[in-house]
Amino acid sequence: MSTRLDEVPPLTDADGAGGALHRLVAELYPICRSITGEGVRTTLRRLQQLIPLELVEVPSGTPVLDWEVPPEWNVREAWIANSRGERVVDFRHHTLHVLNYSVPVRRRLSLAELRPHLHTLPDRPDWIPYRTSYYRPTWGFCLTHRQLESLPEGEYEVCIDSTLAPGHLTYGECVLPGQTPDEVLLSCHCCHPSLANDNCSALAVATALAARLRGLKLRYTYRFLFIPGTIGSITWLARNRQRVDRIRHGLVLSCLGDPGGMTYKRSRRGDAEVDRAAAHVLRQAGPAHAILDFVPYGYDERQYCSPGFNLPVGCLTRTPNGRFPEYHTSADNLDLVRPEALADSLARLVDIVRVLEANRVYVNKSPYGEPRLGPRGLYGSTGGDKGAVFDEMALLWVLNLSDGRHDLLAIADRAGLPFEKIAAAARALVSAGLLA
Amino acid sequence: MSTRLDEVPPLTDADGAGGALHRLVAELYPICRSITGEGVRTTLRRLQQLIPLELVEVPSGTPVLDWEVPPEWNVREAWIANSRGERVVDFRHHTLHVLNYSVPVRRRLSLAELRPHLHTLPDRPDWIPYRTSYYRPTWGFCLTHRQLESLPEGEYEVCIDSTLAPGHLTYGECVLPGQTPDEVLLSCHCCHPSLANDNCSALAVATALAARLRGLKLRYTYRFLFIPGTIGSITWLARNRQRVDRIRHGLVLSCLGDPGGMTYKRSRRGDAEVDRAAAHVLRQAGPAHAILDFVPYGYDERQYCSPGFNLPVGCLTRTPNGRFPEYHTSADNLDLVRPEALADSLARLVDIVRVLEANRVYVNKSPYGEPRLGPRGLYGSTGGDKGAVFDEMALLWVLNLSDGRHDLLAIADRAGLPFEKIAAAARALVSAGLLA
Amino acid sequence: MSTRLDEVPPLTDADGAGGALHRLVAELYPICRSITGEGVRTTLRRLQQLIPLELVEVPSGTPVLDWEVPPEWNVREAWIANSRGERVVDFRHHTLHVLNYSVPVRRRLSLAELRPHLHTLPDRPDWIPYRTSYYRPTWGFCLTHRQLESLPEGEYEVCIDSTLAPGHLTYGECVLPGQTPDEVLLSCHCCHPSLANDNCSALAVATALAARLRGLKLRYTYRFLFIPGTIGSITWLARNRQRVDRIRHGLVLSCLGDPGGMTYKRSRRGDAEVDRAAAHVLRQAGPAHAILDFVPYGYDERQYCSPGFNLPVGCLTRTPNGRFPEYHTSADNLDLVRPEALADSLARLVDIVRVLEANRVYVNKSPYGEPRLGPRGLYGSTGGDKGAVFDEMALLWVLNLSDGRHDLLAIADRAGLPFEKIAAAARALVSAGLLA
Repeated sequence: MSTRLDEVPPLTDADGAGGALHRLVAELYPICRSITGEGVRTTLRRLQQLIPLELVEVPSGTPVLDWEVPPEWNVREAWIANSRGERVVDFRHHTLHVLNYSVPVRRRLSLAELRPHLHTLPDRPDWIPYRTSYYRPTWGFCLTHRQLESLPEGEYEVCIDSTLAPGHLTYGECVLPGQTPDEVLLSCHCCHPSLANDNCSALAVATALAARLRGLKLRYTYRFLFIPGTIGSITWLARNRQRVDRIRHGLVLSCLGDPGGMTYKRSRRGDAEVDRAAAHVLRQAGPAHAILDFVPYGYDERQYCSPGFNLPVGCLTRTPNGRFPEYHTSADNLDLVRPEALADSLARLVDIVRVLEANRVYVNKSPYGEPRLGPRGLYGSTGGDKGAVFDEMALLWVLNLSDGRHDLLAIADRAGLPFEKIAAAARALVSAGLLA
Repeated sequence: MSTRLDEVPPLTDADGAGGALHRLVAELYPICRSITGEGVRTTLRRLQQLIPLELVEVPSGTPVLDWEVPPEWNVREAWIANSRGERVVDFRHHTLHVLNYSVPVRRRLSLAELRPHLHTLPDRPDWIPYRTSYYRPTWGFCLTHRQLESLPEGEYEVCIDSTLAPGHLTYGECVLPGQTPDEVLLSCHCCHPSLANDNCSALAVATALAARLRGLKLRYTYRFLFIPGTIGSITWLARNRQRVDRIRHGLVLSCLGDPGGMTYKRSRRGDAEVDRAAAHVLRQAGPAHAILDFVPYGYDERQYCSPGFNLPVGCLTRTPNGRFPEYHTSADNLDLVRPEALADSLARLVDIVRVLEANRVYVNKSPYGEPRLGPRGLYGSTGGDKGAVFDEMALLWVLNLSDGRHDLLAIADRAGLPFEKIAAAARALVSAGLLA
Repeated sequence: MSTRLDEVPPLTDADGAGGALHRLVAELYPICRSITGEGVRTTLRRLQQLIPLELVEVPSGTPVLDWEVPPEWNVREAWIANSRGERVVDFRHHTLHVLNYSVPVRRRLSLAELRPHLHTLPDRPDWIPYRTSYYRPTWGFCLTHRQLESLPEGEYEVCIDSTLAPGHLTYGECVLPGQTPDEVLLSCHCCHPSLANDNCSALAVATALAARLRGLKLRYTYRFLFIPGTIGSITWLARNRQRVDRIRHGLVLSCLGDPGGMTYKRSRRGDAEVDRAAAHVLRQAGPAHAILDFVPYGYDERQYCSPGFNLPVGCLTRTPNGRFPEYHTSADNLDLVRPEALADSLARLVDIVRVLEANRVYVNKSPYGEPRLGPRGLYGSTGGDKGAVFDEMALLWVLNLSDGRHDLLAIADRAGLPFEKIAAAARALVSAGLLA
């Protein structure tokens, strides 16, 4: 007989989960991922060692909603050599050096001819930018602005030994069955190359959550998706249109390792249960957090929350996309991501899942006046003492608001008490026969 | 032909009501009350001299909702004597000295054996705490911490000459019939011994309100309850389940004599007419007030607002229970309660009743354009003068919002004008045939 | 084929419209207007030279709603002469000198007998007040307090050569037909004598708007009313009761030339489309503006928003009536009104009309996932670049919220983007076949 989530203690930062999470981030970081190709497969196979992950292969050219699956991209080498044959930019040193989805090229050309193909960040001269060109065939290199400035005039040789050919889009899917077919969707993008926070961090945290939930007795069925951004969620939605109604709650996970406070971006619905659960957990965890309204920009919540689907899917991050200076540059590296931040993200994510698992609408079976708590062992018996008040408040709130129209989460929010206290009170009242 | 409430002037602090109220508080203060027993009867018989109060006796053991009426408790004497026979703690000096509902005891014991039965407030060494043990049979004494510290080791004799025996729960009920069977409920607890603010103050103010309303031509029927806390309201509700639907508005009254500003705690519904009326009156009376949301802790509003009944009953206090340091101690005495505070509480309570009596939804009979006010004697006839504006605003607001969906109270709140001005405008418009 | 409003550029302050507007204000300013009489006709005939304005004459005594059309008032001369025959107050110097709607008088009397007929502003001793007595037959003069104080004791002769006789109430109506019979009502009062801001300013701005809209291809039919305050709107409403349902949006215009920021006072409904449009335009134009809730005092919105009609009509001003010290005095003159303020008022008014013309509810035809924008020429094709984000936000917002329940204005407000950007995105998406 397996254990329920509310029977295991909540995660705390002291559990040492941070170190293991950071080591997994460090393993995934060097792999050259894109929206298709071997880098994605290598990444997902590593995660398969930790959780029951199915790899799904969808052929190039498959129509998916308004899109189609693109050709598969792989790159073996990519470099720029100077006139003396020295490689001045080399993909082997950093996966960001090649414009993601570059078409193959091998030719000699002057610096002037080369320049339009070189991307830098003049304001951040030591950082390599991350650039992609999935749908416009071109080639290019990304490098630091200092590298660019150090290049003398003269002839250069460029080589991008890539293939763009019919193949597959690959994604990973891990399903943990629960007592009901109602699903909780957890989705993270696995298409970015060497960017540690965006999104090796969420790959690691999602994997750790799946590992933690596996084997527990779960109310909901949990579906973890490791997918390329945009085209991946569109592909999954296209293949699962009949199944999306089962999704009762969902979270897109990203940027879960930086030292900033946690951020929750509401679903398009704005008042979905997952919106209330995430807001409650972040509020209870302390003041350094932000709750943002939905905007139709960001990660795959854009697709899940498109008006035709309008799923109850929010987005959980620490500092959101575009709001930290290292975003989409080589400075999003293993130093930006902190073990304690990864552990805290996992703990809060588990807290949200705990709320979703335990949240229910109960009905007070003794709704006329307060029932006697003392004889049922629920109450201190000496009255008049101020100190005893706060222990019983959770019981009183649950009894008073369990009229069939308030779930436990609404009661916790109304009472200003942590969900766990309210849920514990509800369990005690159910045991005493006062709640059903 | 009797007078309507809106035909008598509002109470002001200058009416000298405060002195009479304080004298009544002082008469009630020394009586040893509990949730049953002679102290309650003595208290109610004194109020019977002032208002038509029926005493209701409910036998011990009667099932009432989830509870049953407890045995009746009476105490004749209670003391602790030292080895020399000197009474070092004596109930005759303060009713708080005996743990309320103590079982009888007479025995000799050492200080070490006595200590678990002694209750003090180490942080307030000169105050006696108030403690009860209604439902766990035990005995005890309450004393100042200085008294406790002055007790030498040695043998003591304790005597509590109390009875806990089948008898009755006693409560008082005063009904002032109105033009309709719809009721306004005013409820205050009469079970606390020598605590002046909590709740001799409200016993006095409620009695004064009943005396004031008696003989007036009332729209509502007014029901005043003087009941032991919790078990009293539960008993009344159990005996009147078929009658509670008549309760259109209600207030629990408590702690109406301390020098703090007034506080209104909303009913569980949160937007009941009494909630709006009390908030309006407190706002109009000045900034030093508080409007609080319902919480399922406090006084008998807990029972009236239990989810099965969910009555529109709020709670009117000055400083609420537990928020003044003297609460439930011997420092809640005749010095804490001030004549001017009692008079102000009564005046605001009367204001609330005035609003409830006069509040109605009217319909503008001339809703297309503004009707001419001048020929009907409702308007200054020289236009263009800024000074005259404010006199007619109440008329314009009533005409504009009397569309069958706004009551006068909503109009007053929307206009930011005192209810009395809006009600006076409505009366003038009714007289002019413009409103019905 | 005529042009739509969204095909012409928005007005800017640099258009030089302010000078022309101020010249028109200066032409209208000296005319002695009242709620009836030749002054109104002179005013309207001047506006007829600029826009297609119909003059409507309604006979005195005509019943209109709860009122009746008053006798027509005209005044030829009005003066006070001292004992030496010198005219110490003369209507020829300022139209405000005569109490508006004075009955005729010619007689000799002492200063003491004269005083009750003299109106001054002691606090503003150099300003002449504006006073009327439309419905109480009397006579009087308005003068500066310094004039009053300089009058020696002695005998005076007063002459008001006025007529109050059966005639007509005159108003002007200009209708610009649109593609639908749904109407936008623009109403301004033309009854005040020499008061420049209140309301020559709005007469000029409304005329300029009509001139600007004339000849454009309009979605709505525009109805401009130039009417005497109160009795004029009541008369128009009485004569057009069957037509008021066509009014989809409306604005009362007044006080549009002073240097204060713009003010919009909501309709009684509070959330009408015109309320949202005006609030959006004022917010976008900068922080120096105010949005006020409806109050049943002010201009003719009092009549349009009376509960029987309850039309979606707000009021657009700069500084509202009664909130500038010069209000209803001779200091409301051609110096108070500024060309740049008039131009700004016209520009904002045109902005509001632009929103009303273009605001619609669209439906996303590709609502499952985001449609591909690149192949449709709607999107930059190089991903990963932060700079490109903001150009596409309007497209994403329109796609995401066009679910049949949000109009473009709601989308603009939710996105925090100017309506024009959202409307432009909608046009592009309609062209691309993604929106209908």
